[in-house]
Order: sequence, then C-alpha cells, then structure tokens
Amino acid sequence: MSHYDKLTSHYQTLSHFNHAQAMLGWDAAANMPSGGSEARSNAMAELSVHIHRLSTQPQLEEWFGNAEQESLSTEQKASLREMKRQWQQATMVPEDLVQAQSIAGSKCEHAWRTQRQENDWTGFEKNWKEVVALSREEAKIRGAALGLTPYDAMLDKYEPGTTTASLNTLFTDVKTWLPELIENVLEKQKSESIILPSGTFSTATQKALGLEVMKLLQFDFDRGRLDQSVHPFCGGVPTDVRITTRYDEQDFVQALMGIVHETGHARYEQGLPKAFAGLPVGEARSMGIHESQSLFFEMQIGRSKPFISHLSRLSADAFNAHNDPVFAEDNLYKIYTQVEKGFIRVDADELTYPAHVILRYEIERDLINGVIEHTDVPALWDEKMKAALGISTKDNYKNGCMQDIHWTDGAFGYFPSYTLGAMYAAQYKATLIQNVDFGCDFDMAIQSGDLSPIFQWLSDNIWTQASLHTTDELVKRATGETLNAVHFRKHLEGRYL
Amino acid sequence: MSHYDKLTSHYQTLSHFNHAQAMLGWDAAANMPSGGSEARSNAMAELSVHIHRLSTQPQLEEWFGNAEQESLSTEQKASLREMKRQWQQATMVPEDLVQAQSIAGSKCEHAWRTQRQENDWTGFEKNWKEVVALSREEAKIRGAALGLTPYDAMLDKYEPGTTTASLNTLFTDVKTWLPELIENVLEKQKSESIILPSGTFSTATQKALGLEVMKLLQFDFDRGRLDQSVHPFCGGVPTDVRITTRYDEQDFVQALMGIVHETGHARYEQGLPKAFAGLPVGEARSMGIHESQSLFFEMQIGRSKPFISHLSRLSADAFNAHNDPVFAEDNLYKIYTQVEKGFIRVDADELTYPAHVILRYEIERDLINGVIEHTDVPALWDEKMKAALGISTKDNYKNGCMQDIHWTDGAFGYFPSYTLGAMYAAQYKATLIQNVDFGCDFDMAIQSGDLSPIFQWLSDNIWTQASLHTTDELVKRATGETLNAVHFRKHLEGRYL
Repeated sequence: MSHYDKLTSHYQTLSHFNHAQAMLGWDAAANMPSGGSEARSNAMAELSVHIHRLSTQPQLEEWFGNAEQESLSTEQKASLREMKRQWQQATMVPEDLVQAQSIAGSKCEHAWRTQRQENDWTGFEKNWKEVVALSREEAKIRGAALGLTPYDAMLDKYEPGTTTASLNTLFTDVKTWLPELIENVLEKQKSESIILPSGTFSTATQKALGLEVMKLLQFDFDRGRLDQSVHPFCGGVPTDVRITTRYDEQDFVQALMGIVHETGHARYEQGLPKAFAGLPVGEARSMGIHESQSLFFEMQIGRSKPFISHLSRLSADAFNAHNDPVFAEDNLYKIYTQVEKGFIRVDADELTYPAHVILRYEIERDLINGVIEHTDVPALWDEKMKAALGISTKDNYKNGCMQDIHWTDGAFGYFPSYTLGAMYAAQYKATLIQNVDFGCDFDMAIQSGDLSPIFQWLSDNIWTQASLHTTDELVKRATGETLNAVHFRKHLEGRYL
Repeated sequence: MSHYDKLTSHYQTLSHFNHAQAMLGWDAAANMPSGGSEARSNAMAELSVHIHRLSTQPQLEEWFGNAEQESLSTEQKASLREMKRQWQQATMVPEDLVQAQSIAGSKCEHAWRTQRQENDWTGFEKNWKEVVALSREEAKIRGAALGLTPYDAMLDKYEPGTTTASLNTLFTDVKTWLPELIENVLEKQKSESIILPSGTFSTATQKALGLEVMKLLQFDFDRGRLDQSVHPFCGGVPTDVRITTRYDEQDFVQALMGIVHETGHARYEQGLPKAFAGLPVGEARSMGIHESQSLFFEMQIGRSKPFISHLSRLSADAFNAHNDPVFAEDNLYKIYTQVEKGFIRVDADELTYPAHVILRYEIERDLINGVIEHTDVPALWDEKMKAALGISTKDNYKNGCMQDIHWTDGAFGYFPSYTLGAMYAAQYKATLIQNVDFGCDFDMAIQSGDLSPIFQWLSDNIWTQASLHTTDELVKRATGETLNAVHFRKHLEGRYL
C-alpha cells in the first residue's frame, strides 16, 4: 500500500468519528433534554480526544514525507495537500495550550452569559484578558509555523490564503462608499410604508411553509432534514445534512429567510463530490465560501423580487391569508429589504451588516497583533460604531463589544468570513447574469420556479470543486477573477438605491 | 492508581463510545433519511471496531488479575465481577468467528426480507445453514470457556445464570396448564361482544395521548423523549432515554399500549444508580429483567382495570369522543384482554404469548446442542404449534419458522427472556399485594393516579440494584424466592378466567 493510500484510509477512518461527533452535536441542539447534557458532554469530549489523537498520530509525518515522493495525479496531489493542511493545523498548537484555551474559553463564555445581561464589562474583562493572551500565544505559534503574521495565521484557520493585506484592500474600499450608501438608502426608505406581520403564525404551519420553500430550493430530503434549535445552524454530514431554525409565533419572516440561508449551506454540503467523501479535499473550501452559499441563497436568490413573489404566494397559501396586505409581494419585498441602523450584528440587514463585520475585523486584527490591548476595545468600538453607523456604544457594553459569542472563547479571525461570503455571492451573481453560455435569465429562472440552471452553475463551479483548488483559484475559475468588491457594491446599489 | 481504579476509568471511557453508538442507532431508526444510511453504517461499524478494541485490550487481563488481589468493598467486588464478565464476553469468541457471523447473519437477514414474503424456505435454508453452523461453533467455544453446555452458554449472553435445567422446569410446568387455560378462556370470551376502534386517529393526537400516559407513569421528560420508528424500541442512555413507537391512524390501541411497554423499559434505565453510571455494574441486570419492567408496566399496571379506566378517560378526552362506546372502560378492557390463537408471536396476546416462546426455546435449544438439524425445524414447528395452539404451519414457512428476525442473524438464546420477563413481573405483583409494609393497595394506587408507591418499590428493589447482584439474588431479595411460575399462572387465571 502506498503512503498516499495509507493516508487516505487514515483520513476516512477519522471521518467516521467526525460523523459521530457531528450527529451528537446536532442531537444536543435539536433533541436532547436538559438532563442528558452531562453525559453528552463527556461523550463528545472523549470523541474529541480520540479525534485529536488520530489527527496527530506520530507516523503521519513520515507518511506525508513519503507520499510527497509518490507519483500522484493532480487530484491526488490536491487531496494530499488538504490532508497535510489538516494535519498541520492539528499538530501546530501544543496540546497544553489547546487545553488552557478550552478552559479559559469555557470559563469566559459561561460567565459572559450573565455578565452580558448585566452590562458587566469589569467582570468580563477579567476572564477575557486570559482568553486574549492565550489567543495571541496561539497566533504567534501558528504564525511562526506558517511564516505569517499572528493575525494572518488566525485567518488561515478559517480562510486559508486570506491575508490582512487583501482584507485591508477590500474593506477599505467598502468603507469609502458604504456609509454614504446607507444614508441615501435610509433617506429613500423614509417615505415608504410597510405593514409588519402580527398575530399568531403556528410553528407547525411555519415548518410546513419552510419545507415548501426548501423544495423550491431543491433541498434533497433523502439526504437531510429540517428541525428546530435555539440557534439555527447547518450540521450533520454531506449524505445527511441537518438544518435547524427557530420559530417566533408572532412573526414568520425571520424563520423563513433563516431556512433559505441554511438551505444554501445544506446544498453546498449535499453537493460535495462523492468521489472524495470522507477526505479533507472533499470538504467545503472555507468558512467564507460556505457563507457565500448561504448568502447566495439568502441575498441573491432569497431577497430577489421573483423569489419574494414565490414567498408571497406560498406564505399566503400556508397561512390562508390571500387578502392580507402583509403577504403582498411589494410589502414582503419591503420587509426583506428594510434598512435600519442598529447595535446588534445578528439583527442587522444586508446593507449595514458589513459595517458590523469591518469594525470587528479592525479591532481583532490589532488586538491579536498586539497593536492594541483588550482594555482598549470598548472605546474603539464606540469610536468605530459612531464612524460607521453614527451610533454610540459608550458604557453600553452589552450592545457593544460584549454582544457576540465569538471572542469569548477565542474565535478570532472568523468574523471576516461573513462579509467575504456576501462579496463572493455578489460576484457569482454578476458572473451568472453576464454568462452568455448560461442560456437563461437569472430572474426568469427564479420566476419560473425551476431554479435548476442556477444550481447547476453552483454545482459545477463551487459544490463539486470542494477543496480541490485554493480559494483564489476556485473563485477565479468560477468568475474569471479573484474577489473583487465592485460586484458587492453594484449589487447593493442596484437593490437599495 | 489501583488496578480496580484503572479498570473503572477504562470502562467509563468505553461508556462514552457506547453513548455515541446508542445515539447513532436511535437516530438511524428515528430520524435518518434513507440517503444517510451508508455513511451511518460505516461510522457505526468503525465505532464497533473501536469499542471491541477497547473491550479486549491486552493489559486488561493483568489488571483483572491484580484487582482481584486488592482490598475492595462489597459493591466494588460486584463492580469488578461485572467488568470482568463483560471482558470475558468480549474476548471469549475469536474475532474471525465474530466477523464470519456478522457477514453470514447480514446476508441471511437481507435475503430473508424478501424470502419471508415469498414463503421461500428453500432459499432461506441455504443461507441459514451457515448461520446455524457458526452459532453452534460460537456456542461450543463459549461453553468450553464457561464450563457450560453449548445452549447454556448462549443463554448466558442474555440471561447470566439461567440454565436449560431451570428453563425446562419452568416451561414444562407452564405446558401442563397453559393449553387448557387457553381453551377455557376462549370458551368464556366467545359470548363477549367487543366494539373495535375504527376511523381516523391522527398521529399528532395519539402522540399527545401517549405523552399524557407517560406522565401518569412518571417518565422523566428531563431525561428522555418519545419519538417514532418502524420498530418500537427503548434506546439512548440512562440520562437521556429515547423511546419510540409506531402509529396506525386506523387504530390507537396498539401504539398506546406500546408506549406503556417502552415506558417500563425507560423507567428502569432512568432509575439505574447514578453512583455506577458508565460502569457494567450500573447497567440493567439482564434482558429478562429488562423485559420484566416493560411487562410489569404493560401487563401488571397497563392492562389492570384501574389503569384501563385512566386510559378510557384520557383517550376519550384526546379524541373528543366521550359518548363513543369504543372508549368505555369495559370495552377497552375487553380489547386489551382479548385472547386469540394466531401464528404470529409479535401479534400474540398475553395468554398465548408464552406458547410461542416455549416452542422457540425447545427448537433453538436442540438446534444449538446438535440434537436436531436446521432442516428439521419446519416440521418441528408445525408439530409444536399444533400441540400448543392447535394450528398447523405445514408449508406455511412465512408464518412459521421464518416469521422472526432473531434467528436470521444468530440471536439464539434470546427468546426465553420474553417469558421470563412476564413471569418475574407477575412475581413482583404477587409480592407487592402481599407486602404488609407496602402500606397501599396496588389497584388503589393505580386508581388514585399517583402510582408512586409502586414505582418506589420497583426503584428500591430492581432499578437501583442494577447489576449489583446476580439475577437469582436480585429476585430473591425483591420477592423472597427465586423465579416461581406459580405467580404467573395465578395472574393469568385471575385475569382471564
């Protein structure tokens, strides 16, 4: 057996334990009663230890060395590269640091749940200090191993190949036009009237409606399910993708668009190539590319006029409310494109969302690189929030730097993925509508109810490509160029102005 | 660290992987879409391999040897005994035989699914021959290791301590009175009229009713759930017990009593002692004792007149059918105690069920001991069915020896557990109603709707005792004597004559 084959077999074994871990995680969020939590945590921790042991097995180093000397096809080379990448990621950080981070992160996150409610920065800061210090240590170790700056090494965990230099360029560009665009759109929307949903929308009916919309989006129900959880997510494995949402019986619009978003994640997973099942090269390319699928579904398809026309019809049918003006196409479109300045990222609309992300990017970049200290964060947050959206978070920590869970357990480098995803999605759409071979008008395809041509393009260019190429190559092959923020700007101006 | 402590830690680690396996199995039955099956099978097979590896780790032999020299409390001695028992069970049979059995069993079971429908004994016999041969080999190896006859060694897998000698005594006794009792009851019931349910009973309402009944039976919903699956079962782990049922929208009675049955299994699991969580001594004593709990719930509580009075009220409420004679107490009681001679074990009533089990016991005992050959089975089945219930299965293989799944993959030695369970349950009830300290009338406790005194007795005597004692000791401590079929006979005569 060649060393390449040994590695392939090893990573397939690993994938079976990851399968178990993924399903236990989904079940914990979607099904598990409270009393099951302790035994579940223990079981998942044991699996993590086992997965880490397999991921860092000493003989792997030799196998990689030998496999690189073997004669391999282009695809096998890509597979080897991705296995090696996962191995490097797993072995790069010493185990005692991982453990210290896990303890400090859990402690900080646990306390944060009440500290946030109580706006208690002083209490939070005491725990967070340690989290930041350990993340800086991690970033330095990763940076030294990869020949990257500390923050670039953290970006590499989520967005391999993405650098501070490229993000600075992209986000500086956005900052030149976004604030003015937001002001203009707010001015324009001032005079519009919207009828908001009210009254009771039963969970059962919302779920049935969600399933209808998933059908329209060609979710494969032989290989996946829709369930409920407190925090919506897409989990499971490619042959059995589990998406979740949460329902508010006073309002159906959030849950419905949430399902569209998660269906985007799900179809990426369902569309990954079977030939590389269980192997790193067969996995999704990156967090940003994953988000590009969910945001393509949510923003490019989901909030388009022809799709909202479907939502109007399907939701009026579901709630038996054909004469209710809430469900009228125009009104639903206004609801789904309403822009508002707000404190909270997860509640933000499509237009203000990038402002929230860029603010976090700039702060975490400087924090990890040691340019600023953790105690500087609240003042910087306030300053940047005023610059971006004209609102102050002075002394308002819970709606400022304490609002997100990410930093509490040291997930620095993740935030940019959200806006990268939105930008990639806009770039795909631009390619699709310019492509003469595409043989179909984007809006017409949506309007017809048969979105197959759009999905075929995504399948050919993104889903089946998995991690065969680097992110830049993937995007260049799909769209003819690497990421270019101009498409995002045009999309936003086209929709909102 | 003492070797006893090392073993304890090792078996707790093992329990985490068993947790994962249990949850993946439940999910496969209750949630998984068809497309997820291949990856799930692979993941579960990988977990099995890992669990087997941990269960048979070479150093365990030395640890057991050393631990037996250590100074241990009575409970620790019991814990050591049960760890050793599981280790012996896991190491007793060579791996290549286990694998050969798995392959032959899967092949036989897979083909059986269509062969049964087609009444194809000739086709079935070709695959089954191999399954029987391998099971005989397993039985010989186990017998040699344990100093038991081959069939006793198979019984030991499911019912440690139970022997052919004891079963012969118990079942021979039953055979002296059961056929006549069945005839007398059928004669008595001939003149009774029953109104059977018909019409639509929605799954949602049946489930809501089932949950109400589970509340009455004090199922702990913080540590468990009710879901749906094709074959009802009780799975999960003690802190998160997952029971399932299947619903027939034409009839609610089977699903409802099925829930009562599974709730019995579930409360045993939920009632196991926390102090021994994750250890073999903290697990249920045996298959027969497990069945004694489900059958205590189903037969002793569930089909009692006061409990059926609750079912009458709750089901009439649920289906909003207070004037429908189907739901009248007397009618429901008649439905739940109706006796009929039939071919199929899983459809059999309480009274004829033991006849089905004893027939299987006598055949599998002689088959495994080499007294008969697998080709003798159809004729023996026909002969014994005529003797027990007066019906012939000549040439009717699908409703004869091909009806059950157990033998297709070599589960010989399991069938007696069903009737042992029914007998234990009758013996507990006899103890409960004779116990002056019990301070409460059995029927009165059920009637009051607060069944706590009954559950307290089960908890004290069975649930919290887990595997601290052998089966015989457990039953003797609980009831003052080892298993005695007289209580079962009295129970059946009391209810049916």
